[in-house]
Amino acid sequence: MDAYDPTPADRFSFGLWTVGNPGRDPFGEAVRPVLKPTELVKKLAECGAWGVNLHDNDLVPFGASAKERDTLVAEFKATLEDCGMVVPMATTNLFSHPIFKDGAFTANNPRVRAFALKKTLASIELGVELGAKIYVFWGGREGVECDACRDPRTAIARMRDALDFLCEYVKDRRYDLVFALEAKPNEPRSDIYMPTTGHMLHLISTLAHPEMVGVNPEVAHENMAGLSFVHAVAQAMEAKKLFHIDLNAQKIGRYDQDLRFGSEDLKQAFLLVRLLEGTAGGEPYRGPLHFDSHAYRTEDFDGVWEFARGSMRTYKLLKARAAEFDADPEVRQLVAEKRDPKLEPLLRGFSRDKAKQLAALELDASAVAREGLRYERLDQLLTEHLLGVR
Amino acid sequence: MDAYDPTPADRFSFGLWTVGNPGRDPFGEAVRPVLKPTELVKKLAECGAWGVNLHDNDLVPFGASAKERDTLVAEFKATLEDCGMVVPMATTNLFSHPIFKDGAFTANNPRVRAFALKKTLASIELGVELGAKIYVFWGGREGVECDACRDPRTAIARMRDALDFLCEYVKDRRYDLVFALEAKPNEPRSDIYMPTTGHMLHLISTLAHPEMVGVNPEVAHENMAGLSFVHAVAQAMEAKKLFHIDLNAQKIGRYDQDLRFGSEDLKQAFLLVRLLEGTAGGEPYRGPLHFDSHAYRTEDFDGVWEFARGSMRTYKLLKARAAEFDADPEVRQLVAEKRDPKLEPLLRGFSRDKAKQLAALELDASAVAREGLRYERLDQLLTEHLLGVR
Amino acid sequence: MDAYDPTPADRFSFGLWTVGNPGRDPFGEAVRPVLKPTELVKKLAECGAWGVNLHDNDLVPFGASAKERDTLVAEFKATLEDCGMVVPMATTNLFSHPIFKDGAFTANNPRVRAFALKKTLASIELGVELGAKIYVFWGGREGVECDACRDPRTAIARMRDALDFLCEYVKDRRYDLVFALEAKPNEPRSDIYMPTTGHMLHLISTLAHPEMVGVNPEVAHENMAGLSFVHAVAQAMEAKKLFHIDLNAQKIGRYDQDLRFGSEDLKQAFLLVRLLEGTAGGEPYRGPLHFDSHAYRTEDFDGVWEFARGSMRTYKLLKARAAEFDADPEVRQLVAEKRDPKLEPLLRGFSRDKAKQLAALELDASAVAREGLRYERLDQLLTEHLLGVR
Amino acid sequence: MDAYDPTPADRFSFGLWTVGNPGRDPFGEAVRPVLKPTELVKKLAECGAWGVNLHDNDLVPFGASAKERDTLVAEFKATLEDCGMVVPMATTNLFSHPIFKDGAFTANNPRVRAFALKKTLASIELGVELGAKIYVFWGGREGVECDACRDPRTAIARMRDALDFLCEYVKDRRYDLVFALEAKPNEPRSDIYMPTTGHMLHLISTLAHPEMVGVNPEVAHENMAGLSFVHAVAQAMEAKKLFHIDLNAQKIGRYDQDLRFGSEDLKQAFLLVRLLEGTAGGEPYRGPLHFDSHAYRTEDFDGVWEFARGSMRTYKLLKARAAEFDADPEVRQLVAEKRDPKLEPLLRGFSRDKAKQLAALELDASAVAREGLRYERLDQLLTEHLLGVR
Repeated sequence: MDAYDPTPADRFSFGLWTVGNPGRDPFGEAVRPVLKPTELVKKLAECGAWGVNLHDNDLVPFGASAKERDTLVAEFKATLEDCGMVVPMATTNLFSHPIFKDGAFTANNPRVRAFALKKTLASIELGVELGAKIYVFWGGREGVECDACRDPRTAIARMRDALDFLCEYVKDRRYDLVFALEAKPNEPRSDIYMPTTGHMLHLISTLAHPEMVGVNPEVAHENMAGLSFVHAVAQAMEAKKLFHIDLNAQKIGRYDQDLRFGSEDLKQAFLLVRLLEGTAGGEPYRGPLHFDSHAYRTEDFDGVWEFARGSMRTYKLLKARAAEFDADPEVRQLVAEKRDPKLEPLLRGFSRDKAKQLAALELDASAVAREGLRYERLDQLLTEHLLGVR
Repeated sequence: MDAYDPTPADRFSFGLWTVGNPGRDPFGEAVRPVLKPTELVKKLAECGAWGVNLHDNDLVPFGASAKERDTLVAEFKATLEDCGMVVPMATTNLFSHPIFKDGAFTANNPRVRAFALKKTLASIELGVELGAKIYVFWGGREGVECDACRDPRTAIARMRDALDFLCEYVKDRRYDLVFALEAKPNEPRSDIYMPTTGHMLHLISTLAHPEMVGVNPEVAHENMAGLSFVHAVAQAMEAKKLFHIDLNAQKIGRYDQDLRFGSEDLKQAFLLVRLLEGTAGGEPYRGPLHFDSHAYRTEDFDGVWEFARGSMRTYKLLKARAAEFDADPEVRQLVAEKRDPKLEPLLRGFSRDKAKQLAALELDASAVAREGLRYERLDQLLTEHLLGVR
Repeated sequence: MDAYDPTPADRFSFGLWTVGNPGRDPFGEAVRPVLKPTELVKKLAECGAWGVNLHDNDLVPFGASAKERDTLVAEFKATLEDCGMVVPMATTNLFSHPIFKDGAFTANNPRVRAFALKKTLASIELGVELGAKIYVFWGGREGVECDACRDPRTAIARMRDALDFLCEYVKDRRYDLVFALEAKPNEPRSDIYMPTTGHMLHLISTLAHPEMVGVNPEVAHENMAGLSFVHAVAQAMEAKKLFHIDLNAQKIGRYDQDLRFGSEDLKQAFLLVRLLEGTAGGEPYRGPLHFDSHAYRTEDFDGVWEFARGSMRTYKLLKARAAEFDADPEVRQLVAEKRDPKLEPLLRGFSRDKAKQLAALELDASAVAREGLRYERLDQLLTEHLLGVR
Repeated sequence: MDAYDPTPADRFSFGLWTVGNPGRDPFGEAVRPVLKPTELVKKLAECGAWGVNLHDNDLVPFGASAKERDTLVAEFKATLEDCGMVVPMATTNLFSHPIFKDGAFTANNPRVRAFALKKTLASIELGVELGAKIYVFWGGREGVECDACRDPRTAIARMRDALDFLCEYVKDRRYDLVFALEAKPNEPRSDIYMPTTGHMLHLISTLAHPEMVGVNPEVAHENMAGLSFVHAVAQAMEAKKLFHIDLNAQKIGRYDQDLRFGSEDLKQAFLLVRLLEGTAGGEPYRGPLHFDSHAYRTEDFDGVWEFARGSMRTYKLLKARAAEFDADPEVRQLVAEKRDPKLEPLLRGFSRDKAKQLAALELDASAVAREGLRYERLDQLLTEHLLGVR
């Protein structure tokens, strides 16, 4: 036990589907047995986690009777209470059953769209019953291989209709629940609509109730397309739309890996924790720190818990490194904002006079261009802080 | 001369920087001499183009005197008139001069930001003088290698300040001009802020005058990140934000190639033309068809004009193929929308009663799941139409 | 029925695992039932295929008794004969069972390595019994997520030991069988050893019996890494090592898609068929044309057979287009080799005199540099041939 | 000054083109002046470097007279001696001059091929005169955009002819010089022949004098294609073909970035240093540690030297971390090779008896499959060592 071991105060959460993942992949069978949700909760609590998230069918099998459902839910709630665990987030499985093979809210068949809506309504009820305050939408099958099958504009409109309907439903029920949209560029579809956090942020701006919808960016998903996850999260934070986050790791341009947080691209992980924690200034993120990842297929359950502990420890290690970096006097000097009290007022808030002053601005462009910005030094300091030698 | 040879009625445009590109690359010197802008205009007109676009410095060298500028502009306008060519779009070069090495509107040095604003104001004047109705912003250096140098939220806020200022300027001058934002994920910076059309669409929704700002998506830029260009364009069209478009070709996950339109990923090019032309239904795009690309470095000027003609011919060929595809009765049958008059009303516009009906919906999920959707057939028909055998 | 419909004379083959794929993916359950191998053979024959390939466990379930095996094999052979189908290639499933979770020939546990060898010996016997002349090795789990677990040099040495052992076995048994190694960069492991056809070609050069080992390149695998599949195949052909080929389609930088041949990157598919068929000259490939792909998950079995027919039709369409392209007089003129009878002899076969002549060579570099190479024209001709308008 | 500051004993080298890079990129002008080679040598010596590498034209401008050349070379040698610096490696610039726009050794025009050979002969003389023992071939323009222009097999044969000629030349002159081939997948050409270290290793196996030719893998080049650089280097080392190495950093699927070593993918950099230094066992690499990278364009010359020092410091830091990791008793236990004295002899060196024993092997596959491999623990230990907390 050291300072980096997790405690509930850290607000770490895992999905039931993460530590419970049996390790099946496209080329091989399950390598681990399926544990009961209540067993997973107990073990997560032992590891120091604070919350557990779920899809409806992680707890209640597809097609279960109302009675079976109620028994499972009661048992699950009792275990949560025993363990002092919470359910911060819930979501719907709209991808496993073959009915969703062409998507859910965007499917061409209206019966599929209706079924997806019905399933989500029921799943929202489950989430609320378990105390979830955030409801995630990951539309992993809302996409295509054969693009000619549907005008992509129709798909967007269908998605908007569904979200508007569901927002109204939650408002009508007066639930204390917000929505978080999760983008992914591809897999399991060749191309998924609204493939990045940026596209989702735009979609939100076109909804009937944008105030109750934010995003749930996932490290692996933005990384698959080689985009900066840190910038995507920052754009969401700047717009006050970071409602939830999925932490894991991923190599660029590969299948969805969902690796242990920090096990790839440590530098980006460091920059992310720095941004979320606000060690460099700026408003920090205060929501759950959720790990959407799973243990290697080479592991038994000991390995799964090692994976869970490692995910949380690495976050805390990076948080410590970020605080040290931003407290380093040389770093502070290098990142201090350049000031120019005469010019800065010209740059915000148009007036004819400002435009005139700018047009008349005399500036030696070559002289400004010659100034070295010392970013190599700053980046090397980051490397040395990360490696723990400063 | 055949039906696919371009005419001004097709509204094709090229940038001065495209056909005028001397072929310098990171590893080699120029392979073609620099032609005068007026010579380029004449040759483009001969090739059948309708318009020519430009950065300020494509016409007026950096640091030119007012008199030099006026002479160049007058000569250019005379040539445009002689040739019957128009300037549909103009833009600012905020990336070539070393002063922009850390970006322009987002640079850390306020003197750089002020200089960028001043330069853009002057460049807007030039564009308006030449008759441009669309003003493009490509912030290719608005990014980072050393991410610690700046809070990405600060970069976004600075970009917004600049755009708001410039919108007010255009409104104040009562110019008939709209803005189009162009995203790019990386190069020449390691990561560029607002890296995709989706991120730009979201940024627009946060501006003071969103109604006068749209996007200018570029095939190559969305493709570099492996995202569907067709979906990005569709999202912009659905939001009435497709103000301009940059046509070219690019392999995924490579340096910015700016290849001849249609020379890579013919299927996506076909789907794009189909969407823009509305052959499958939906509102078509009616703006300029701009090629932002350049001839291979292996070419002399004969090759450059071959490249220009080929770009336009391929567009027209694909337009013909798209019309044939969407007129094919088998295709029409395969893409006909599935209807369900009982369910569809439940899917739009929430009411308690609709929610109740959905909750009570009885549906045999397995039966629906078993229906084959015939997308392999549809996609094969697309292939055969593309290859010209149906 | 038209000229592009497949016949056995075209030598097209499919794997049992391709048309028999039930459509399970990492996020969803099977969408199609599992058909018996004999049913698949009958349907393939109806579609015009010539051959069918298999993994041992596609026909004989893991752990089947000797008697069960013999019954299944006898029934399968009878069906083959009835349908006039052949088994050109066989291979071992060394990836589905959890015992292979850390690889097979390269696994750290010697018991796993021994089991993999034993399983392959039995599977070679099966392949030979069915008449296969080519035996493929795809080591999809021969890789890592946690790279520290094994020196990669050890993995390579273990792979070599296994291949050398198996070559000796086949020689000892006097089987008429060659080996073909299939590379893949990643998935289901984060990084797979010897990730491209190039790495495999090198490995072969270090084996004890390189003459009996070649490669089996797969479109999707080379494409995942964004490498030119055509160049990889050409390098193998130049070295007389193209023993087999896996045809399908794939977008760069994505999960393994195994799409219908020609449904992505038609230009590369065209260039590939042109190379394999030798329409531009050079030795053609005469081995089986194998499709390693599967129907979209949206399809029922009608869609599966549409997919199979479409794969073969597109190959034949491209073959026709390639022949037309290479017969076009303008193309022939553009691709005609440049000759220089004085210089060419200096370029091959060193002698002191040649070196001296080269050192004394007077050549106007700028003049040579100015010559336009007309590749834009050539590439546009390719586009227009592909689209069927020349 | 601390333990991580570089000294000549560390055998670090830089190219003249790296620290001398003026920062021109495809979208912008040079940001730094061009320093004289002798100045660069002096500064590198001050920074603690041991060697300096060069292209012919880094020292002697294209087209310089014999007298100019001799003066420049004499001055350069004097400076080397003064500073105690060596030239471990030399190479030819076969890409900057427009004559090489279609490649050098593989160009379609025999005059270009002859000129490339002549230039290389002269450049080898220069390298030998400066004491270089390694001669690198990077054929960055040996590729295509328009693939139809040349049979790729012809390109490979031309490359082989050139290398065979040059090997003979070196042997004839009895120079103490080996060749190292450097692969790159793309840029500045859309696709470059023999795109990875694997393809180059195979090409070597087909040369007339394979014993004098090895590889020069570059971090950035293998990474551009998303391949494991560590595995590529290991394959070269296992074949005793790692003759030189180019250290830098790169994000996957982007333009050629040539970033400061360790500034991206610290984990892979750690694994690479661990492999090169042999801290986990196995033969270490003993050649030069060359940095082929350049400072950000935001930097003045202070930033350039910071970049150079940072490159070397990070290498030494990672070397220390690797030694600690491999000395950690828990790590040693986790990576200890599993032994099975009964099975292991069966796995190497075929005999009929071994095949029989393997066929008869009884093994409980499920029991073996259930064993957890503890790779999550091992990888987390790596993370914690890297972060400096163990």
